[in-house]
Amino acid sequence: MSKVEPKIMSGFMELTPENQIKFNYMYDTIKNTYESFGFLPIDTPILEYSEILLAKAGGETEKQIYSFKKGDTYISMRFDLTVPLSRYVSQHMNDITFPFKRYQIGKVYRGERPQKGRFREFYQCDIDVIGNGELSIAYDAELPCIIYNVFKKFAFGEFVIKINNRKILNGFFSSLGLSEQVTDILRIVDKIDKIGAEIVKEELIKIGVSEEAADRILYFINIDGSNDEIINALKNLNIENEIFNKGVEEIEQVINYLRMFNIPENNFKIALSIARGLDYYTGTVYETNLVDYPELGSICSGGRYDNLTSYYSNQTMPGVGISIGLTRLFDQLMDNGLIEKIQTNSSIAQVLIVDADNSNFEYVSNVGNILRQNNIRTDIYYGDKQLKNKMKYANKLAIPYVLIIGETEKNESLVTIKDMVSGEQNLTTIEEAIKIINKK
Amino acid sequence: MSKVEPKIMSGFMELTPENQIKFNYMYDTIKNTYESFGFLPIDTPILEYSEILLAKAGGETEKQIYSFKKGDTYISMRFDLTVPLSRYVSQHMNDITFPFKRYQIGKVYRGERPQKGRFREFYQCDIDVIGNGELSIAYDAELPCIIYNVFKKFAFGEFVIKINNRKILNGFFSSLGLSEQVTDILRIVDKIDKIGAEIVKEELIKIGVSEEAADRILYFINIDGSNDEIINALKNLNIENEIFNKGVEEIEQVINYLRMFNIPENNFKIALSIARGLDYYTGTVYETNLVDYPELGSICSGGRYDNLTSYYSNQTMPGVGISIGLTRLFDQLMDNGLIEKIQTNSSIAQVLIVDADNSNFEYVSNVGNILRQNNIRTDIYYGDKQLKNKMKYANKLAIPYVLIIGETEKNESLVTIKDMVSGEQNLTTIEEAIKIINKK
Repeated sequence: MSKVEPKIMSGFMELTPENQIKFNYMYDTIKNTYESFGFLPIDTPILEYSEILLAKAGGETEKQIYSFKKGDTYISMRFDLTVPLSRYVSQHMNDITFPFKRYQIGKVYRGERPQKGRFREFYQCDIDVIGNGELSIAYDAELPCIIYNVFKKFAFGEFVIKINNRKILNGFFSSLGLSEQVTDILRIVDKIDKIGAEIVKEELIKIGVSEEAADRILYFINIDGSNDEIINALKNLNIENEIFNKGVEEIEQVINYLRMFNIPENNFKIALSIARGLDYYTGTVYETNLVDYPELGSICSGGRYDNLTSYYSNQTMPGVGISIGLTRLFDQLMDNGLIEKIQTNSSIAQVLIVDADNSNFEYVSNVGNILRQNNIRTDIYYGDKQLKNKMKYANKLAIPYVLIIGETEKNESLVTIKDMVSGEQNLTTIEEAIKIINKK
Repeated sequence: MSKVEPKIMSGFMELTPENQIKFNYMYDTIKNTYESFGFLPIDTPILEYSEILLAKAGGETEKQIYSFKKGDTYISMRFDLTVPLSRYVSQHMNDITFPFKRYQIGKVYRGERPQKGRFREFYQCDIDVIGNGELSIAYDAELPCIIYNVFKKFAFGEFVIKINNRKILNGFFSSLGLSEQVTDILRIVDKIDKIGAEIVKEELIKIGVSEEAADRILYFINIDGSNDEIINALKNLNIENEIFNKGVEEIEQVINYLRMFNIPENNFKIALSIARGLDYYTGTVYETNLVDYPELGSICSGGRYDNLTSYYSNQTMPGVGISIGLTRLFDQLMDNGLIEKIQTNSSIAQVLIVDADNSNFEYVSNVGNILRQNNIRTDIYYGDKQLKNKMKYANKLAIPYVLIIGETEKNESLVTIKDMVSGEQNLTTIEEAIKIINKK
């Protein structure tokens, strides 16, 4: 029979079990942290009616969406978890308790041109808080507090959550008479870390910004210092614009709340250059960077929006959300050798039991049952291979202990426990073996 | 703006957060049990090249597959987790440690005509053990042992894992000179529980089986009794067919292993009428039923196959696998009121903190931090609603305790803890509150 070459499409991540276990550890850490703040899980379909998913999309995003027709139905694959959340909240509005704190972790799809670091299938780990009509600004501080807790647990080194407020940006540009060009200006300004101030200025002038305004814009986005210094500098601009002042007030509140949450000051920072999803966010926006790995870009982003459900409902539902792009993050951690820092054995068997002379099945099974009753993940090697081969299996899978069971062990109701790291080997009781295994 | 009606496609399950928590509890129970037996996780893409996924498919299955073209690429959505496993093992053969014990839990897709109990998107929870060239029959017993542990934990009532062996069936029909018609005969015989013995006989005769052979077939599939009685009855048929005798030997071994695993005798039973995936399995086959809910059909099925990787590789890789269709199972449990038996609060906040007069943010946050450091899932209600509204939120979400914090509590570093079930309310220390919350 002719064979089909076994391969997957580019842009799709597939891991070895060893790395999958590390990935799952990160997944679980995120999930458990989200739950520890009272967020509730939902799980929406990956396939939805195209008219639902495309209600808002357009331009580049729409081109990337996997869409097809089955029978008479136009179907699309979700490309984020926010549009499905919007549909979910609109559909189930009467059954939901507000503020609705939901998390969803799942795969999303974008048919992008494959390139390093871009994925066509990737996990998003989203939390959002949705209010019915109104939503306290304290939630704008709770989300970075949660993200702080996640990355603290990961221990990939120093990180900083950058915070800005779209009202500050909108108000500032409005005060320069540039309201109509905000989107274009932000797109240019967003690139400052990549292309530098000079080219940003050139590009601003190219779209019709006066040289004076361009200088003010550059002065503005370069405002730096401690969080308090930045807030003072903003106030000292003496801009008489209601939106601007509202934004400064909000960012000051968020900073104060973060301090009351006890988040160390070096883990959050006002950064006036970040803008995020230009037509979407309306208040606080976030990005997160690993200090020693700036080349990773933002590993966690989000912000506040005025109305989640405008495409499907007449209710006004403000919300604030943040998302970790886990697949991309994991890929970058692999590239930078950082996943070695994930010391987890949360899914690997803690012990392998081997039958030394292939005639002690019943006793082997009993020992296995006892270990599992003691919550020890226990693999048993079946088959009449030589002992050597069975030890090799444990070694390859990095199982830390092997229990060797032969005639003697069976007759005396004992086990021989071998520490696969030290090589040490002892005849002992099952109870003692349990203690040794649990100690690691 | 005109609104799009928020709805999902039929055949897709979407749950309330309350039910999602129960679903996740089942998911986690299955995952943890699989891991407790040393199975390793993998996560393959949902989208694969059509030529990979369709290498084997055909007929009804192929018609149900979601396929589309993007650019020049023919893409399909996976319709099970076995074909991707086959591709994975073929592709990564040199990096895999055999026997390869893997689990995968994920969504699969079938564009079936929507009808009650049929899903187009559903979770499969698969475990398989793959051998390189050979695989001990002991694994054929380990899999039902794992399933026993899963359903024991679920406690949905009595269940029985039915076991048969395709070699017994093939050998038996071969001894009747009906080898060519095995597939058709099994298809008819498989329906005996639904249509009864009389109609089975009629249909057998209709496809050319002699009346005598039809009677022997009916006699054969009606062999019943204890496991030992069935094995003896099979031996007493005195069929001189190598395949048949090999099958009887295998089923006897599996039954003996199950006893040595200490699985209670009433949880497994030889059932000669079950056949499963007619062109796929080659040895042991399984189905699982809830004794009090026979109408649910098999809630967990699988079997032994001679070669997993024949479409992608020249290696011979025998395997044995079993799968729980979690989405369908959960749907049936909902229909039968059985999910009420799932008493889990594994994802709901254990406590809600409310700021009684909206002026104690810092102390509220501190208490929240302390509780979370003590591994208590803690929700905090922000916003200046009346206390009544905040209590309603806790009530609706079934959060068991509320900590009320006002001026007095803050000044004395205490909390008022309210038991939302009994209504009892006490002023106490944070330490004491932690003890009370942890007790539940």
